[in-house]
Amino acid sequence: MQTPWEYRYAHRTRKMGSSVIRELLKFTEQPDIISFAGGLPAPEVFPLKEFGEACNTVLKEHGAQALQYGTTEGYKPLREMIARHTGRYSVQVTAENIMITSGSQQALDFIGRLFINRGDYIVVESPTYLGALQAWNAYGAQYISVRADENGMIVDELEAALRVGPKFIYVLPNFQNPSGSTLSLERRRKLVELADKYGVPIVEDDPYGQLRYEGEHLPSVVYLDSQFRGPNGGHYSGNVIYLSTFSKLLAPGLRLAWVVAPSEVTRKLVMAKQAADLHTSSFNQFVAYEVAKGGFLDEHVKLIRSTYKERRDTMLEMMEEMFPPEVHWTKPHGGMFLWGILPEGMDAAEVLKVAIERKVAFVPGAAFHPNGGGENTMRINFSFSRPDVIREGITRMGVTLKELLRKDERVTINE
Amino acid sequence: MQTPWEYRYAHRTRKMGSSVIRELLKFTEQPDIISFAGGLPAPEVFPLKEFGEACNTVLKEHGAQALQYGTTEGYKPLREMIARHTGRYSVQVTAENIMITSGSQQALDFIGRLFINRGDYIVVESPTYLGALQAWNAYGAQYISVRADENGMIVDELEAALRVGPKFIYVLPNFQNPSGSTLSLERRRKLVELADKYGVPIVEDDPYGQLRYEGEHLPSVVYLDSQFRGPNGGHYSGNVIYLSTFSKLLAPGLRLAWVVAPSEVTRKLVMAKQAADLHTSSFNQFVAYEVAKGGFLDEHVKLIRSTYKERRDTMLEMMEEMFPPEVHWTKPHGGMFLWGILPEGMDAAEVLKVAIERKVAFVPGAAFHPNGGGENTMRINFSFSRPDVIREGITRMGVTLKELLRKDERVTINE
Repeated sequence: MQTPWEYRYAHRTRKMGSSVIRELLKFTEQPDIISFAGGLPAPEVFPLKEFGEACNTVLKEHGAQALQYGTTEGYKPLREMIARHTGRYSVQVTAENIMITSGSQQALDFIGRLFINRGDYIVVESPTYLGALQAWNAYGAQYISVRADENGMIVDELEAALRVGPKFIYVLPNFQNPSGSTLSLERRRKLVELADKYGVPIVEDDPYGQLRYEGEHLPSVVYLDSQFRGPNGGHYSGNVIYLSTFSKLLAPGLRLAWVVAPSEVTRKLVMAKQAADLHTSSFNQFVAYEVAKGGFLDEHVKLIRSTYKERRDTMLEMMEEMFPPEVHWTKPHGGMFLWGILPEGMDAAEVLKVAIERKVAFVPGAAFHPNGGGENTMRINFSFSRPDVIREGITRMGVTLKELLRKDERVTINE
Repeated sequence: MQTPWEYRYAHRTRKMGSSVIRELLKFTEQPDIISFAGGLPAPEVFPLKEFGEACNTVLKEHGAQALQYGTTEGYKPLREMIARHTGRYSVQVTAENIMITSGSQQALDFIGRLFINRGDYIVVESPTYLGALQAWNAYGAQYISVRADENGMIVDELEAALRVGPKFIYVLPNFQNPSGSTLSLERRRKLVELADKYGVPIVEDDPYGQLRYEGEHLPSVVYLDSQFRGPNGGHYSGNVIYLSTFSKLLAPGLRLAWVVAPSEVTRKLVMAKQAADLHTSSFNQFVAYEVAKGGFLDEHVKLIRSTYKERRDTMLEMMEEMFPPEVHWTKPHGGMFLWGILPEGMDAAEVLKVAIERKVAFVPGAAFHPNGGGENTMRINFSFSRPDVIREGITRMGVTLKELLRKDERVTINE
């Protein structure tokens, strides 16, 4: 007899579903569509030459070790290098504070696994990163949304959320995915103080921190937290779990990221990872270390910044020129996304359907709001497409938006 | 104030602990210890040259795609190649049945995530693979142990276990980790029939299937299940989830494995993976495909077989010569492990302590028994060490065992 699989699944599986976004995005895979929907780095900036040289060196000098099983926490020289990198931003940590993960998505999953009981509340910005919601939904999380503006989470509204007793606060302070906003220094300080006051940890997700195209670098939340706590003897033991990644600096196809956490948390993360996948690819860790150890990424990031800055500027100029005046958008200082805001009552998912007919795509913003809202918003990626493609794509979006807005007007007049 | 992390963890985390094995194995990392404890492939058989060439080809021909984000289910040409490989064993599947995972450990984790509610029973052989227990403990599984002998799970005892209503049956039919046993053809058939009778799925874990050093290849459980069900129109929809890996044929440091399952199960696995780590390294998938596509692994596996056969034979000969007659062991037809059985009442963990002083190590067998027992058993790896090292290590173990057995006798006499 055919096995009745659907009756075998666990509770958590029955709640799984393909997201609306995934369904919509299938259409964006057609080759003639200009897609601002994904969150992909520009392949033009992948350092193929340096990467290939590193592969050869690793196989020649460390082949037997690089192809063998490795330790769960990660390749020690890589962890030590990340500890030094973290120290450059004045956060004193050692390799004991650091675990390598298979992308930041895996770190989000492990944080859910470690902390979330079914029904636990997590404080998030609204909108927030969809991947975090997907990871934590699997553990039965509920979300308290705190509103955000162009300066990030409106921290004045955080205290009420903290009084609910959430497990942790999740924040993307730099060039947030999806909105492109950056948390102001004043709000970062207030966030650290409030989290300490209520004893609630902070998960700081920082994939884009180095991708700043204008303005001054702002200190990370983990730095402000360690400052707030005073000297730690070189061993971080504060209130923040900090995530970053090689996906944006080197290449996402390697699936290499890292967590910085108090060592007692890192030890638990290592236990979770051992049960989940033993360890992250040894070869990829050796190669990333080989590419990065001489400081190459410090130089390489300048190329990434100038490439993405040009694309962002092109997109902003084209929007200014092509978008109807009823539509607004953010002007992010870095990262990979900007955020479009349609007039109240206009549904970005409906706009997407028409846009796809015009061969251009973006992500409607509603899915980034865990407790509803944001139907009139849209995430638009500027890192992936070349400037000429951006010009054509924004032109198509402008035509679509004008058409829909004029149609809306006609409908209003007829009623 | 210092954050009281220990009060923030979820229920599942509080039950996590470093395993006894991990604690013991720390000692085995000393460089002068001969370790039969790990489950490592021989680095001498890693195809460094072919791997290096594949890296260069991939970067030259597919660099932008291989370093970019990829699809969650895995690189399609690789999945199609695995489908053809599966077809060679007369199991008709398509790429829709296959998902790439970051090692088989990750497949075990996802199977737990998909199927196990807290308290669910899983039928396992006793002893069974420790990594599966670690993965499923995180989901609150309980285990029904079915005894095993040199022909694998004693399937006559399975029916009673199935009447308890378990979620699935977990079996490693070929050269099992830890015992080295192989499930006989008759028992495989019976297993398929009983699983069908009670409507209980089978998880078939087959990392070592191709590493046979003597005797005839036995048909896989997934093949027997599809035979039992009759023609499927080329699309597998049976009762078995089958796992295998590139770790033993190519290199474990890549973290590349695969699942074959009915496509409705594969779709759920893809959703679980998307939330857990987005996808497995694109680069590693491209490289594995490049290495394997021309049939190289078919040739390469012959080298692995002859290397491991020599090591197994050396170990068996040395045991014959050096081990005291009270100690028994299995003679596996393939794989990487054999299983030592000490006299009843002798504790392998105590033996290990003395063995480590004599600079040799193995894994005590108790941890492989989820419901207790097996204190007098030990897992001994023969794939990793060169023959001369095996000779020296088994000599050291023999001396240790003789010393302890003679001491036991003296104690008995004195009492």
